[in-house]
Amino acid sequence: MSKTKRYNVALLGATGAVGQKILETLEAKNFPIDQLKLLSSPRSAGTKIKFKDEIIVVEEAKPESFEGVDIALFSAGGSISKQLAPEAIKRGAVVVDNTSAYRMDENVPLVVPEVNEADIKKHQGIIANPNCSTIQMVATLKPIEEKFGLKRVIVSTYQAVSGAGAQAVEELKDQAQAFLNGEDVDAKLLPVKSEPNHYPIAFNALPQIDLFQENGYTFEEMKMINETKKIMNRDDLSVAATCVRLPFFTSHAESVYLEVEKDVSVKDIHDVLNSAPGIVLKDNIETQEYPTPLDAAGQTDVFVGRVRKDLDNPLGIHLWVVSDNLLKGAAWNSVQIAESLVKNNWL
Amino acid sequence: MSKTKRYNVALLGATGAVGQKILETLEAKNFPIDQLKLLSSPRSAGTKIKFKDEIIVVEEAKPESFEGVDIALFSAGGSISKQLAPEAIKRGAVVVDNTSAYRMDENVPLVVPEVNEADIKKHQGIIANPNCSTIQMVATLKPIEEKFGLKRVIVSTYQAVSGAGAQAVEELKDQAQAFLNGEDVDAKLLPVKSEPNHYPIAFNALPQIDLFQENGYTFEEMKMINETKKIMNRDDLSVAATCVRLPFFTSHAESVYLEVEKDVSVKDIHDVLNSAPGIVLKDNIETQEYPTPLDAAGQTDVFVGRVRKDLDNPLGIHLWVVSDNLLKGAAWNSVQIAESLVKNNWL
Repeated sequence: MSKTKRYNVALLGATGAVGQKILETLEAKNFPIDQLKLLSSPRSAGTKIKFKDEIIVVEEAKPESFEGVDIALFSAGGSISKQLAPEAIKRGAVVVDNTSAYRMDENVPLVVPEVNEADIKKHQGIIANPNCSTIQMVATLKPIEEKFGLKRVIVSTYQAVSGAGAQAVEELKDQAQAFLNGEDVDAKLLPVKSEPNHYPIAFNALPQIDLFQENGYTFEEMKMINETKKIMNRDDLSVAATCVRLPFFTSHAESVYLEVEKDVSVKDIHDVLNSAPGIVLKDNIETQEYPTPLDAAGQTDVFVGRVRKDLDNPLGIHLWVVSDNLLKGAAWNSVQIAESLVKNNWL
Repeated sequence: MSKTKRYNVALLGATGAVGQKILETLEAKNFPIDQLKLLSSPRSAGTKIKFKDEIIVVEEAKPESFEGVDIALFSAGGSISKQLAPEAIKRGAVVVDNTSAYRMDENVPLVVPEVNEADIKKHQGIIANPNCSTIQMVATLKPIEEKFGLKRVIVSTYQAVSGAGAQAVEELKDQAQAFLNGEDVDAKLLPVKSEPNHYPIAFNALPQIDLFQENGYTFEEMKMINETKKIMNRDDLSVAATCVRLPFFTSHAESVYLEVEKDVSVKDIHDVLNSAPGIVLKDNIETQEYPTPLDAAGQTDVFVGRVRKDLDNPLGIHLWVVSDNLLKGAAWNSVQIAESLVKNNWL
C-alpha cells in the first residue's frame, strides 16, 4: 500500500449494523483515509459517530455527497444502491456495494479477494460484495478446488439473526427474555419484515431467509447458488442450498458437502486449508476442537472444522464452516476489496 | 386391539425426560394396562408419580422387578439396559429398549412402525427403539422410497437440547438468562457430559452430539447412518450425516437431501407424503407454511416442508423434516411398538 497516498472515502449506511462494523474495520486496519464522509437516510442524518479521534456528523446521502470521493462503501439496502451508485460513479467514485443490487450484473465483479481478486480490475465503477453466507463458503471451497477439483456442493446453513439487521438482534433478545419469563412471545420481524407472517426465532429455527422465489427456493438460497458459480467462475458447478435462521446473534455456520475430482484424504484437505489465506483450520476430535458461532464472533477469518470423508463416496467431503457474518461476511470483505483497489492501483 | 386383554407393563427410567413422556403417552393413548410398575435407579426410587387416577411409587429396578411383567419399556441408559434387559427377558417380559445398547445387534429388530412394523415379529425378547434423529428421517424416506426408489441421503441436523436430557434443558435456560443479564455463561454439560470440554449452547451451535468415533464422525452421526440402513433394510443405501446441537428445547429439524431413482415432481413427493402414515405435509411458499421446532413440539407426527427439486440433479430432492424428539423420536415410537406387540399378538 502506498505510504503517502490517502483517499477520500464515503460510507453510506454508516448507522447500520454492517456500517458500524465497516467503520471499526477501517480503523482497525488503518485504511489510508484522507477525508471520511458518513452518509445515511434522512432519518439517521445528524447522528454523531466517533472515528479515531474525530467526531463525524452523519449527513443525508444525496447525489452531490459523492463529489470528490474516491471510494464509496455502500451498505444501505439494494434500492438505495440502485439509486445512488450511478450518481457516485458519475462523480468519479468507485463503489464497493454490500447489497444484492448489482451482484448478478454481468458488468459488475463479485469478489471475495481470497478467491477472485483479479476480477476487481475489470470493474466499471462498481464492485459487489457477495452475500455473507456465500463468502465464507467460497473462501473455503476455492483452495480445495485449486488442488483437487470440485464437482458439486450441497450446503445447509445455520445463520445468525444479525444477518437480518439490528432490529432482529433486539427481537431475539426480547423474545428470549419473554420466553424465560413465561410470557407470550411477540414476533414482528422474522423471517422477513415485509412478509405477512412472522414467527418466533427465540428457541426456534426458521427455514426461510428472505423471500420465496417461484422455484421454491428462498432468495438467500438462490444467492448462495448463483453467487458461488459467479465468484468461482464455474457455471457448470452444481450448487444446492438450504438456508435456516437460528437463535444466535453473530456468525453463520454451514454444513457443507462437496465432491472433488481426486480421491483425497482428510490430511490432504487439512494441508490445503492450513495454507489457505483467510482460513483457520480448527479440527481436532481428540481435543474436541471445532469452530462455533460464539468463537468466531469478532474474528475476520473463516474457521473450518469437522473435516470428514464421505463413508460411501470416495470423492465426497463434509465440512463445518463458521465465520462472523458482519466481518468476513460483510464489513471486512468490503474493506479488503477497497484495500485491493488501492494496493493495485485499480481505482 | 383386544377389548378385554390387559397387560402388566414396567417402565424403567420413569423419572427421566423420556420416561415422563412415555407415561403421558401411555395415558393419552389409553394403552391396555393391567398393572403398571415404575422403576428407576436407587437415587430416584421413592418418587411418587401420578398415572391416571393413581399415585404410583417408583421402585428401584432389580432383576426381580420384572416378575410377572409382560412388556418392559426401558429408557434409563445403555448400561442399565445391558444389565437388566436379559433379566427381564428371563422372567418372560418383552423389552422395548429406547437406548442404543441393542440397536445394531443383528438379533434385535430396530423398528419405526410406519417403516418396518413386520420386523417386530422376529424379536427374541427385545425390540430396539431407534435414535430420535433417525426415526423422523426414515419415517419420511420410506414412503418416498416405496414409490420412487432411493439411492442416497445426506442430512444435516438441527437438534434440540432435550435430546441430551433434562439437565441440558436447564443448562440452556440458565445460560440464556445469564447471557441476557450480561453475566458470565457457565458450561458444565454440553456437548457431552463425560467429555473434558464443555461449551455454551445458549445463542450458539455445537457440531458435536455424543462422542467422536475413530473415523471422525460422532456417535450420533454414525447412529443415523447405521440405523437408517438397518431399519430400511438397505445396506447399499448411501447415508451421510452431520449432527448439530442448537439452542432450542424441543423437536429436531433436519435438512435432508435425497436422490431417488425416478424423475419426480414436487407434486409427486407432496402426494406421497400426504398419504403417508404419521407424516404431515406443511409446505406452502405462498402462505409461508413450513414446520418449525416450536410448532412440532407436543405433536406425535413428523412434519415435512420445503420440498424442492435439486436445480442440477433431476433425481435430487431437498426436504425439511421436523418432529418432537421426545415423542415420535422416543416415547411415542416406543408406545407404538408396544401397541403393535399387543395388536398383532407378537408378545
